Formats: sequence, C-alpha cells, structure tokens
Amino acid sequence: MSQTTNQSWGGRFSEPTDAFVERFTASVDFDQRLAAQDIQGSVAHATMLARVGVLTDDERDAIVTGLNEIRDEIERGEFQWSVPLEDVHMNIEARLTDKIGITGKKLHTGRSRNDQVATDIRLFMRDAIDDIEGELIRLREGMVELADREADTIMPGFTHLQTAQPVTFGHHLLAWQEMLARDHERLLDCRKRVNVMPLGAAALAGTTYPIDRHVTAELLGFERPAENSLDAVSDRDFAIEFVSFASLLLMHMSRMSEELVLWTSAQFDFIDLPDRFCTGSSIMPQKKNPDVPELVRGKTGRVYGHLMGLLTLMKSQPLAYNKDNQEDKEPLFDAVDTVGDCLKAFADMVPAIEPKKVNMFEAARKGFSTATDLADYLVRKGVAFRDAHEIVGESVAYGLKEEKDLSQMSLDELRQFSQAIESDVFEVLTLEGSVAARNHIGGTAPDQVRAAAQRAREALAVLKDQA
Amino acid sequence: MSQTTNQSWGGRFSEPTDAFVERFTASVDFDQRLAAQDIQGSVAHATMLARVGVLTDDERDAIVTGLNEIRDEIERGEFQWSVPLEDVHMNIEARLTDKIGITGKKLHTGRSRNDQVATDIRLFMRDAIDDIEGELIRLREGMVELADREADTIMPGFTHLQTAQPVTFGHHLLAWQEMLARDHERLLDCRKRVNVMPLGAAALAGTTYPIDRHVTAELLGFERPAENSLDAVSDRDFAIEFVSFASLLLMHMSRMSEELVLWTSAQFDFIDLPDRFCTGSSIMPQKKNPDVPELVRGKTGRVYGHLMGLLTLMKSQPLAYNKDNQEDKEPLFDAVDTVGDCLKAFADMVPAIEPKKVNMFEAARKGFSTATDLADYLVRKGVAFRDAHEIVGESVAYGLKEEKDLSQMSLDELRQFSQAIESDVFEVLTLEGSVAARNHIGGTAPDQVRAAAQRAREALAVLKDQA
Amino acid sequence: MSQTTNQSWGGRFSEPTDAFVERFTASVDFDQRLAAQDIQGSVAHATMLARVGVLTDDERDAIVTGLNEIRDEIERGEFQWSVPLEDVHMNIEARLTDKIGITGKKLHTGRSRNDQVATDIRLFMRDAIDDIEGELIRLREGMVELADREADTIMPGFTHLQTAQPVTFGHHLLAWQEMLARDHERLLDCRKRVNVMPLGAAALAGTTYPIDRHVTAELLGFERPAENSLDAVSDRDFAIEFVSFASLLLMHMSRMSEELVLWTSAQFDFIDLPDRFCTGSSIMPQKKNPDVPELVRGKTGRVYGHLMGLLTLMKSQPLAYNKDNQEDKEPLFDAVDTVGDCLKAFADMVPAIEPKKVNMFEAARKGFSTATDLADYLVRKGVAFRDAHEIVGESVAYGLKEEKDLSQMSLDELRQFSQAIESDVFEVLTLEGSVAARNHIGGTAPDQVRAAAQRAREALAVLKDQA
Amino acid sequence: MSQTTNQSWGGRFSEPTDAFVERFTASVDFDQRLAAQDIQGSVAHATMLARVGVLTDDERDAIVTGLNEIRDEIERGEFQWSVPLEDVHMNIEARLTDKIGITGKKLHTGRSRNDQVATDIRLFMRDAIDDIEGELIRLREGMVELADREADTIMPGFTHLQTAQPVTFGHHLLAWQEMLARDHERLLDCRKRVNVMPLGAAALAGTTYPIDRHVTAELLGFERPAENSLDAVSDRDFAIEFVSFASLLLMHMSRMSEELVLWTSAQFDFIDLPDRFCTGSSIMPQKKNPDVPELVRGKTGRVYGHLMGLLTLMKSQPLAYNKDNQEDKEPLFDAVDTVGDCLKAFADMVPAIEPKKVNMFEAARKGFSTATDLADYLVRKGVAFRDAHEIVGESVAYGLKEEKDLSQMSLDELRQFSQAIESDVFEVLTLEGSVAARNHIGGTAPDQVRAAAQRAREALAVLKDQA
Repeated sequence: MSQTTNQSWGGRFSEPTDAFVERFTASVDFDQRLAAQDIQGSVAHATMLARVGVLTDDERDAIVTGLNEIRDEIERGEFQWSVPLEDVHMNIEARLTDKIGITGKKLHTGRSRNDQVATDIRLFMRDAIDDIEGELIRLREGMVELADREADTIMPGFTHLQTAQPVTFGHHLLAWQEMLARDHERLLDCRKRVNVMPLGAAALAGTTYPIDRHVTAELLGFERPAENSLDAVSDRDFAIEFVSFASLLLMHMSRMSEELVLWTSAQFDFIDLPDRFCTGSSIMPQKKNPDVPELVRGKTGRVYGHLMGLLTLMKSQPLAYNKDNQEDKEPLFDAVDTVGDCLKAFADMVPAIEPKKVNMFEAARKGFSTATDLADYLVRKGVAFRDAHEIVGESVAYGLKEEKDLSQMSLDELRQFSQAIESDVFEVLTLEGSVAARNHIGGTAPDQVRAAAQRAREALAVLKDQA
Repeated sequence: MSQTTNQSWGGRFSEPTDAFVERFTASVDFDQRLAAQDIQGSVAHATMLARVGVLTDDERDAIVTGLNEIRDEIERGEFQWSVPLEDVHMNIEARLTDKIGITGKKLHTGRSRNDQVATDIRLFMRDAIDDIEGELIRLREGMVELADREADTIMPGFTHLQTAQPVTFGHHLLAWQEMLARDHERLLDCRKRVNVMPLGAAALAGTTYPIDRHVTAELLGFERPAENSLDAVSDRDFAIEFVSFASLLLMHMSRMSEELVLWTSAQFDFIDLPDRFCTGSSIMPQKKNPDVPELVRGKTGRVYGHLMGLLTLMKSQPLAYNKDNQEDKEPLFDAVDTVGDCLKAFADMVPAIEPKKVNMFEAARKGFSTATDLADYLVRKGVAFRDAHEIVGESVAYGLKEEKDLSQMSLDELRQFSQAIESDVFEVLTLEGSVAARNHIGGTAPDQVRAAAQRAREALAVLKDQA
Repeated sequence: MSQTTNQSWGGRFSEPTDAFVERFTASVDFDQRLAAQDIQGSVAHATMLARVGVLTDDERDAIVTGLNEIRDEIERGEFQWSVPLEDVHMNIEARLTDKIGITGKKLHTGRSRNDQVATDIRLFMRDAIDDIEGELIRLREGMVELADREADTIMPGFTHLQTAQPVTFGHHLLAWQEMLARDHERLLDCRKRVNVMPLGAAALAGTTYPIDRHVTAELLGFERPAENSLDAVSDRDFAIEFVSFASLLLMHMSRMSEELVLWTSAQFDFIDLPDRFCTGSSIMPQKKNPDVPELVRGKTGRVYGHLMGLLTLMKSQPLAYNKDNQEDKEPLFDAVDTVGDCLKAFADMVPAIEPKKVNMFEAARKGFSTATDLADYLVRKGVAFRDAHEIVGESVAYGLKEEKDLSQMSLDELRQFSQAIESDVFEVLTLEGSVAARNHIGGTAPDQVRAAAQRAREALAVLKDQA
Repeated sequence: MSQTTNQSWGGRFSEPTDAFVERFTASVDFDQRLAAQDIQGSVAHATMLARVGVLTDDERDAIVTGLNEIRDEIERGEFQWSVPLEDVHMNIEARLTDKIGITGKKLHTGRSRNDQVATDIRLFMRDAIDDIEGELIRLREGMVELADREADTIMPGFTHLQTAQPVTFGHHLLAWQEMLARDHERLLDCRKRVNVMPLGAAALAGTTYPIDRHVTAELLGFERPAENSLDAVSDRDFAIEFVSFASLLLMHMSRMSEELVLWTSAQFDFIDLPDRFCTGSSIMPQKKNPDVPELVRGKTGRVYGHLMGLLTLMKSQPLAYNKDNQEDKEPLFDAVDTVGDCLKAFADMVPAIEPKKVNMFEAARKGFSTATDLADYLVRKGVAFRDAHEIVGESVAYGLKEEKDLSQMSLDELRQFSQAIESDVFEVLTLEGSVAARNHIGGTAPDQVRAAAQRAREALAVLKDQA
C-alpha cells in the first residue's frame, strides 16, 4: 500500500490508495514516453513565469538546470520511475524537488496536470507527424521513380479482378501514389490542429496568475494558444484525427499489400520481391512468403481498432477532463509506431520491386483485354456504342468457345459479327496501341505516365521545401 | 427472371441473371437519389463530347433536351424505376433512348459506369457539404449569441463530474463552439478533396476518344480532373473522410447532449428545455424527457458504425473497381441525413435553452469550488504551491466534517490550517471574484468570454462570405 | 405542428411538439415492421389480463377481435400510419380505440411502451433467427454434398497465398463448412438469450396490477420472464449478440468470397460460376464479373458497422430506458436482412460451383507443393527434420534455377542434395500420394474428407430435427 | 543483419533478411507470453509421438526433460530471448537443441508453427477464461450480497435520467447482476469453442506421420481435435468471440461506471466510495475523483477497438494461414488483461459502496415519482388508463407551478382534477407503498428483491461447483 505523502493530492484523503488501484490507475508505464516533451513544456512554462514575474530569474534558472539534468538522467536510462507517483509529470516534478528543493514545487504554479498532459501530447504528436512525413515523402518518391522507369511496361488492368483493359505498370504505381498524396494532405491538415497550445487552461478555467500564454506558445513553437480553457483540457480531436489519417493510410497500404501478395503468387507471378523482404516456412522448404505486405495488411485492423477505441472513449463525456482520457495515449502511441514502421518497410521495399514484364504482358494479351478497343473501333466506323458492345460481346463468347483471343481471330471470323470490321482492325487489337491511345490527362498512355510522374516529382519537391 | 436484353452487358452471357440475384445486386432502390447529379454529369459530358467533335451539336441538343425532360419526370414522381435495369445510370439512359432513339446510346461514349458513379457521388457530396455548412454556421451563431448573453452567469465547472472551479455558462457554451469550429475546418478540408473530377477515367484506363477533361471539370465546377484513371474509379477516400468528419461532429454533439441530459435532470436542474423539444411518457404522466439530446447522443453510434463499415469495405480491395464499392452509398447517404438532422435540431434548440441561474450559482457555491483560489491566495502570501495544496486539502476535510463551505468558515477556523490566512481571504472565496480573476485569453472571466464571442462572430462572418 | 391531443403524454405539456422534432423523434417509419409482433404481444397481454381479472372476458374479446382486424388491415396495406402518433405501438392502440372505443385504452394496463417494444423486438428476432437457421442449414448441406463429390479433386493448398501442399477441393469446402458450423452454434446460443420475456417490467419497476408473467411468457412461447424489471427494459445484449454472430458469419463469407473471386480470375481459373450469378460490364463486353461474392464481401463492412454502432449506442447509458435506444432497430433489421440475403445467395450459388479440375491439378503440380513430402521421406530415411528441411530447400532453389519441379528432377539431380534419396522417392512426389498420406482425422486424404462429410451430414440431420 | 543459419527456413533463400524487416516481422516480444503453453503443447506432442513410435522413449524423455528445464529458465527470468529467432516457438526449439542436441530437432516432426501457435493460444485462452470466471463470480457474489442488504433502500428509478418511479437500491444492483449473468453465459459458450485442438493440422493439410490426435487432445485436456486442418490453422473465431464477450462486459461495466460517477457527484450524492478507490487533484485540493469507474468506462473503447481490429484482420483472408494472423495476439492479450483488471477492481470496490439512504429517499420523494401510482389508483376507481394519465398529467403541471409534490397536495387540490380521488389516495402516494406494490417476479418490491437475490445465490453456487 502506497504512502499518501508521495502523492500530490493527499490532504483531503483519510486512507491511502488501494495497492491494486494504484497500479490500475497509474499511467507512468506508458506516459514516460512523453518525458522529453514534458520537460520541454516545463522549461517554457518556467521561462514565461519568470518573464511575468511569478518566478525570480534564479528560481527559473534552478528549475531549468534541474530539468535539463533530469532529461539527461532519463536519456541515460538512470531515472527511477515510480508507480506510486502515478504519471510522468509527478515523477519528474518529484525528482526536481529532490534536486533543487522547495523551488521545484513552484514550477506547477499556474498550471495543472490537465493542461500539462494535453500540451505534452501535442508536442509529441507534432514531432511524430514530422517524422512520419519524412517517411511518406521517401515512399512517394520511390513510387514515382519506379513508375517513371516502368512507364512502358504493359500489364492487365483489372476490375472485379477480371482482366479489363491493358494498362501500364507505371500507371498502376501512380494510382498508389495518388492515394498517398491525399494522405499527405490530410496529415498536414491534421498538423494545423495539433499545433495549438492548451497550456494556461490550468485545470479547466484558466488561472489567477498573470500568465502570458502568447509567450509560452511562441517558446514552444505553437501557432496560437487554445481559445477556451474548458475545451483545451478536454479536446482529443487531434488524436482521433491523426488515427483517422492513419486508418486511411493503412487502408491504402492494405490495398497495395493485397496486390503485392497477389502478384507474388504462382498464379499471377507478376513481380519478384527480394529475399530480404520475405520469410520462409518451418515445414515447407519451398516457400517464400511475402511477409512484409501481409503484415502491413494485417496491421490495418490494429489502426482501425485504435480509431474506434478513441471515438468510443470520447463519446458522451461531459466536460471538462475525466479520468477516461488517460486511455488516449496507448492507442495513439501504437498508431504512431505502426504508421512509422509500415511506411519505412514500404519505402525500403517498393523501389526493389522487380516486375516480370513478360508475364505481365502475356497476362494482358489473354483475357480479351482489347475488347473495349474493338468496340471503340466499331463506333468510329459508325456503329452506336451499345450496339458495338453487343457485337464485341458475341465475339468474346465465340473466342471463349474457340479458345482464341480477339487478335488471334481471322478477319472472316471477326466479320461474322459485324460487316463494319475491316483489315485495319488489327492495329487497335495490339496492347501497345491500346495503351498509347488513352492519351489524355489521367490516362494510361506512357507519355501521360511520364508527364504525371514529373508533376508528382515537382509537387514533392515543394512539400520537401516546406517540411 | 429478367430479360438479358434489358441489360447493358448481355452479349457474352448464355443465361439470364437469377431473379433473386438481380434484386440482390441491383442498386436502383438507393442510388436513384443520385438522379439529379447523374443528369447534371451527363449534360456536361454531352456538351464536352460535342465541343471535341464526338457528337454533333444536334445530337448534343437532343440528349440535353431529353435529359432535362427526364429530370422533370423524376421531380414530378412520374419516372418508372426498374430493378432489372440495375441502377440509376441505366434507368436514365434507357429512358433517354426511349425518348430520342439511337442517339441516346451515344451519350455513353468515352465514359463508363465506373467513372460516372464516382462523379455523381462527388457532385452529391459537394451539395450535401454546402447544405451542412449552412446548418453548422447557424448552430455556431446560436451558441455564440447565447454565450455572449450568459457571459456573467456562474455555474460549477466540473472535472471527473466533481465540482472543480466556478466557470461562466457563456464560457462553457464557447467550449462547445470551439469543438464545432474544428469540425467546420475539417468539413472544408474534406470538401477540397471531394471537388475533384473522376469523369474521363472511363472503366479504369481512360478512353481512346479525344475527350477534354478540363472542359467537363469546368462545366461541373470541379477544381481539377483526377490525376490517375485507376485511382479515380477506385477512390472512396472522400466518403470515408466525410464520415470521419461526421463521427467527430457527432462525438462532440454526444458530449453536449450528455450535458443537456444531466442539466435537465432533477438532480442538476441547471436548465429548462422548451416543451416543444421534449416528449412525455405513455405511463408516467409527470415525465418530460429530453428526447432530442438523447436521440442525438444515440445517433453517434450510427455514424461511428458507418465509418467502420466504409473502412472495412475498402480494406484490401485490389484495384480498380470492384462490386463491393456499391456498398458505399447507403452509409454515406445516411451519414449525410443524420448530420443534417442533428445539426438542424440543435440549431433550433440551443438558442432556446433557458439557464436556471439561481440553481447554477447555488451549485457552484457548494462543493468547495474556490479551493484553488484559496491555494493561489496562499501562494501569493508566500506559501509554496504544493504546501498550499496540502493546507487547503485539510480545510476541505474539515469543511466536509462540519458541513461548511470555505466561505462559511470563520477566520479563526481557517487559520487553524495556516497562519498566512488573513481577513482579505474572503474576497477570493467569492464566485464572482474567482471567475473574474481568470482573466487571460482562454480564461473564464466574463470579459474574456465576451471578447471570445466577438472573435468567433467575426470568424463566422468571414466563413459565411466564403461559403 | 401536431396536436398534442394525438399523443399519449400531453397533459403535462404546455406547447405542442415542434414539427421537425416530431418527425426527427418518430420511429414509425421503421418500427412498423414490428406490427405483427406488437399485435401478438398485445393479444397475449390481454389474455393474461383477463385471466387475472383485470379485464373482463368481453373486454378481452373485443380487444383481440379488434387487434386481429388491424393485423388484416396492415397485411392488406390499408392501414394508415401516422407520424404524429410516433411509433407502431401508439398507431395500433389509436386504431384499436377508434374501432372498439374506450375499452381499447385498457389494453395498456400494467405495461409500458418500454417493456412492450423490448418484447416486440425479441419476438421479431426469434422469428428472424429461425428463418436464418433454415438458410444456414441449406447452405451447409450444399457445401457438404459438393465436398463429398469433390473428395478426390486435387488443388493447391495455400499459405501466404503461396502454393504450400496439395489438398483436395472437398477438404477446402469442408473448411468453409466448419466455419459455418461454429456460426450455427453461436446463433443457437444467441437464441437462448433472445427468448426471455421483458413484458411485465412496465416502465422500469414492474406494475401494481396483479399480473401473471408466467402466463404471458407461456402464451408467447418465451422460455421464462426476465428476472429484473430495470434490466428488462434497458437490455439490448441480444441485439448486439446477434450482430456479433452476423459479423463472424459475414467475416467467414468474406473469406469464401475472396477465394471465389480469386478462383474465377484468369490467373487462377480454378472454377466457373454459372452466368446467372454474374454480371457484365457496360463498357467491356468480354467481362463476366463475380458480382455475388464481391457484393457479399462488401456487405461485411455493413454488418461490422452495425456492430460498432450498437456497441457505441449502449456505452455509458445509465439505467433504465433512454431515448437513445430507439436507434437499436434500424441496424438490427438491416443485419437480419443482410444475413438472410447473403445466406440465400450462397445457398443457391455454392452447389452450382463448377471446379475446373485440370487447372486445379496443374496448379498443384507446379510450385513444389510436395516439398514437405520429400522432407518427410528424408526423415523416414533417418535424416533429422530440420536437416531434411535444409536439403529440400536447396533442391527447391536448384529447381527454381533450372525451372524444374521436384518430380521432374532425375534421381541423380536429387541425390546432389542427399545420398539418402533413393528411387522410391518418386512415389511420394505425386500429388495423389501426397494427399492420400494425410490420413488422420482432420487431414486432407479423400477418405478422411468423405468421412468428415458423413459426420457433418449426420450433425445437420440432428439440428434439423431440433429446429 | 541476421544470420540466415539461425532461421528455420533458410535453404531456399539467397540473402539474409533485412535487419529492420527482421524486427518488424518478429513476434517474440509479445508471443513469449505463450511460453508455458508452448512447452505444455510440446510435451504432449512428444509424448504422443513416442506412443505412436515416431520417437523412442529415450528421445521423448530427453525432450521432456529439456523442455522442463527451459520452463524453469523462463520462470527464473534467465532465458535469453532472440529476435532473429522470430518467435517463442523457434526460441524454445533452438534452446532445446542447444541442450539436448540433434534430438531436439525431432520435436517438430508432424507439426508446423501454424498448428503449434493456434494450439498455444487456445491453451492460453482456456486458462485466461478460467481466471476471468473466478473474478466474475466474485463480483456477482458481491453484488448479490449488497443487493440483499439494500433490499429495502428506496431510491428514484430513472428513465431518460428523469425521475420515473421509486425503486429499491437492491433492485438496481440486481439489474447490474443480470447483465453479468448473461456475460457469464457467453463466457462459458465461448470456452466450448476455445477448447478444441488444432494440433495435427500441421501447416494446413495434416501430416504424413502416423499421429494420433485423440491422444494429444486427451493429454492437453481438449474436448476434441479440430475437424478440418485448413480451418484449424486459419480459424481465429475464438479470439473474436472472446473479445465480443469482453466488449459486452465492458459495455455493461461502462453503464455501471456511469451511474457510479453520477451518484458520487455533488448533484446526486447517492453514494460514497471509500477513499482507497479514488484519487485527488494536483491543483484542486477539495477533489475526490471516482477514478476507478471513470477508468473502467474509458477502457470500454480499448476493448471495442480490439474487437474491430480483429474483425478487420480476418476480413477477406484467403485460406489457410497468412502472416496477417500474427496480429491476433496483442489485442487478445490486452483484452484478457483489461477484463481481468476491471473485474478485479469492481469486485473489490462494489461491496464497499456506501449508499446515502437519506439522500436517495429524498430524491425519490421529489419528482412526482408516484404519479404512476396515482394513475393506477384512478384506474382501480374505474377511470380508463389513458384518461387517468391525462388527469395525473394535469396534477403534475399544477404541482410544478405550485412547487408541491403530489403527496404534499391537499385532497381538495387533488380533486380539482378528478372527483374519483378520495382520502385513501394518500396511501398510494408513499414511496414504501409504491415499491411494495410492485410485487411480482421481476418487480422492485423488497420481497421480490430478496427472493431474486436468493435465486442468484443458488445459481452462482451451481456455477462455482462446475468451474
């Protein structure tokens, strides 16, 4: 059973906290991850308090020196974390008071753990977002360069996982890259709302000390102080918004992963992944498993789960702070780690994808993938689109029966279905002709792919400058 | 059993669709809601096709006239929707061909249902977002005005649903308003990503017709054509992002609702809601139930569920379009309706909230809500914060035993706990003094509340100008 | 604006309900689906009231006759539903009073809408579960029979979507069937908890009338009355439990669907689905899309969403009934419909799956699927398992380089890797030998598949007898 | 970069795993929690292998002795876990081979990591369920005894958080207990489906060794071997079903927590929680926060999130095992820990709840909670129910205006609204009379509460005997 004297709120209490309850309600096991940000916030708070005259300069200096020493102790792994001290904030404050005496207690003037923890998490998330942006840019760049290299590589485009029309592999990679471009936008939109300072809200109502929140905000690099103290201590939107970003990102990566798994199967056999991104089997010696994409696909559930968890957490909570909110950190930290790891794994792996061009081409050649081109040809010859569709449908049914692709049929065979077909039809039935003909913005023509890669490259350069 | 000849893809098929499967896979029951947008998109598509020479001007005119007549038929409720025709697109196209003959079939040149439906939903969502923004502004304005009126009304501020410190009712209302301000930002961020045009992606790869996507985008008011055809037909991010916005909004409204329900309880009795927003009981004649906030709180689940549903839907889907995506519409439509209804209900109700000022004040007076003020007082008298905290804790324990609030104790009683307490202590123990002293940006002081209301009013004026 | 006199709770109210609020809070649009159950419950309630002397026999007869007529009006589509009357209960009661006068009002003696609606939903769910069980049995039977027919059909077994070991198609189908067997158990477990009667709980506390709940429970076929009135009106566990069942079922069906989509792709080409379960493309005439499995896979999200929605709905609700609970019906009804439709579609489709046996066999022949058999062979020759694994791994690496499967290598080639390999090795490298050798309960040997099919057939016969 | 020779599948691989990928894909950090179960399974597997002649008795003895020593090393914290060895299984097997040489490698005969891990988790979950059941019984017992003690304590019963009718506190506690009784049933239903043995499924198809799965199942206490090898290695239903149980349990506990938080607020002030279950504030010395119920309420989100995570994980996975499944363990372990901790906290806390009977009674006395009793009285005097409802509604409106409860009105005042009211009315307007009159099974009458407590006590005794 813990000593109440260790705790910051003992005066009103007649019995100490139950030992199990103490462990159950403590957060220091996971919130110690906020130590650097907690110290960063405290240094700025002390600096501001001195500037407005609540602390003397000597007091401020003692506090700042003490905090810097504590930061070093933590980095060196020498800091003794204590569960009875509940959380990262009380652990650091208690250590500060050990080191510098009664002055350490003055640090908490004009703030509360409620605004302190909200500030710490926002500082942490701002750093995390910046790291994540770095990996995201690296992945996008890798995709753009691979797409540019593979602008002419023909593969089947699928709808309903049925061969639909030929596309280029570069075009497909740029579709992935577009998904990430939207994620990137959402990440930056989220960052705007992260970068707002709760400090000064104190417990919930503000403080009676003559604090200057603009000073603290500037010291900490926040864009502005939060507008309302009740909202500042109870708002966890930024956490949910980040995990929403993460959920969309992982959804996209699950789609890429699904395709990578398909493409490395014996049935598709469209690409090779280097051995260093795969693992084997303990019982089946021939296996080479695409573990990285499978695991990333699996991690989608984890991140969706955190989103639902955080949304549930905040549902129906009356203002302002409630203990429930302690549950915000673990899912958020795990989402940050998951996003970072998945992006790193993909940023390393994607540029190493080796397309098996012959297999891709051959798969596109089969499956009547130029049927739409034949229909378009007929329309250009004056047949109404819906009629052309019907004619091609019948040609395909014939081809299925005779086991012949459209380009393998003779002119006579084709003319069974429409007299509008002439000998120039064979030009539109080639794969190269088919992709080159889709030559407008957004289309799969190699020239369009190269132009799109160039636009993406330039957009990324601008983003890197701003980051 | 349906006739295959009704369908747009019959040529390759040797037996008609099973009657149950036809109903199971049809979407016309719900996607007919997109009819106006489908026609709007088709008119722009036909106009562009004529401009690039794929249609003659006469053909375009026949199509546009036919489509306008169909719009009127739908608005008048005279249109016959057909399940065997699967969806809104085929229903309208079939009717067009009925009306204007073979030319009707030419409308589908250079597009596919895949890009058509993606375009329709985006047009629909753009309209829906604009309507929702209107209600959101109305609600925010109502809150700001009420907050301004109640800038001096004192109530208890809670943490852990325990009385913490006095705040003003206006300050509390502005906390709500801050939540909505972030929702508003997210709505506009989402709108940017909605307002991109898929049309021209055709089935997945673009088209061989000489289309001009910039023309169509301009005609439809889209900011730009989508960059990649594969992505354009498979992207449903905007739907998920909208429902993420909706989830955060409903989470906020669930918190407001929870408070409204608490405040109308006999135990709190802080406000009155006009009868017109309440309902009664079939068995308990005395009941007046806060149905509107309860129902809004309940609808949170509905919207969270749609978010989870859409994220699940898209998980692991290979590119490009799959039939799964048909499941995007119902949750999205329901989220749009739910958000619109909940905002309207609140925008009507919030300005009609009647605070019971005496009860609020009395509740704040009890519960030692100025204990922090006493601690701050002690600090100003030279006591270290943590020691002051301990002293006040003991005073509160005494007060609980003696059933006296701090302001009800005599100076002698107070001085039992610290000799630093002097007769000027009673000024800081009043509620008015307590709130007025929290006089910095974000604080609960009435002057700050009025200033914050004015800033919010100005921000809303700017947003209304832009909307 | 509605007339308060239409409503059941007007006396305490000084202004009528706002017209929008009336529509917003009304449930009759969706809860009219409970009409048959509402009447069933009312007939039983009236019968019980007469038996305990609260109603006369004449009053009971008038009520029962009136309710039966109303049931007929509803079935004939002649009933006029009214939104101002809020819900199905008040609509029916108002019509009853129209028909039989003041006696109609006595029906509500000793009950409340709170226990009435809880009873109606449970009656509805009991019927729904029984219907669903019928379709589930039909699907399981179809799978078992197809598995039995295909007990000898060899296909590749996959892990990580890589060819692992040969299995039989019958074995694979029985894996599906095992999933459904667990779903079936869960459905029956859920039914136990559905079949408990809330009626008699009244608003929340029970009633002062001398009701006999055992009589009503027996009349309605409930297993027992609910034990606690507060719980009875606030419990929605059975709804959540049903949607949990549905989520697991749809998860299973999404896995089957994923495989069906893979197997119908040109790359796998393992099965054919009859045209009547597929649809085509409006632009690509060659397409035959596996719409039914795709759509079922997509509907997984819908059901997961309803689960999340209902869990969110009930989170943190204080006892007993709150208006939030009105939101339970729409997700529950939709889950019932979705489960019913998906099971029906699969029960029709699965028996019609046509395996392409040559393609399956050929796929299994490639991909070193008997590598484990070679390893096991080496172990039987005295090589330690982990060493055998290493030897086979090297053989496979050689085979990949030389483009030869294990069975295509000469004895000399194989003996490069281990001198323990002798000429009898070729027996274990055949697919037929491989599957036949896995001849224990749960193994893929054709004999085991037939035995397992027979066990499943017998278990289903028992379940049908009990249903 | 790790050495491939450390790994169990290196032969086919030409380059070692990337160091980051190695860490990213390794599971040993979390799956080492399965060590005891892994050894338990291996001992049984070795015993069975010896019984069927695949191992000699000496080999078995060496393996069993080695495994027991490893178990001791792990328990003493001396075991060196290695990330390059990927998971708990390979770590233990490698250590076994270190200790006993080549024989150690034979342990893996006739099994794979796929069936091994599935077996380990099921053994782990069986133990976890049994521990959880113990805490659940303890909590239920505590509730029943408290309910019995408080069978006569009157409090307001709420619907819509409005005072509805008086109930007894014991009755309310038994409503909680009913929720837990259903959770208990679901836990035992889940345990049935956990207790099935995958071992022998090997990688996916069974094994060619002459294993006897019934022997292994009996040694491990499983009810039966799994019926189908493909299903056995890919089934994670039991994990989802457990987390579904946990979600419903936490939903119930969130409702109890919400009520505890309300009841400890100054506004309700219905109960006292001992200080040892509460914590204080670092800034507000008067605060005593109900941290335990708040935290439990917050943990609801965590468990809901895990449910969504696991459902998402399994969606659309083709058979049999995929790497995605590695993501099953962390949410499952966390759900187990969360459920265990929350139940323990409540089982300790609930019996220590101290009702403030005077406050409860006084709250019930206000708020017209006997209005229904007055209506029932009028019906007994021959007034139709709906008319009685109207009369009482008017009396309440009068009472609100005059600030008088029904029992405070004079007979003349009451008779303004109906001449049917006579002097015996005052008996039915007392709270004691009101609760005593609800005297049927499920009703709130003290006698019914005591009888229900006795039934619950007996049911728990039966469950304890079976546990």
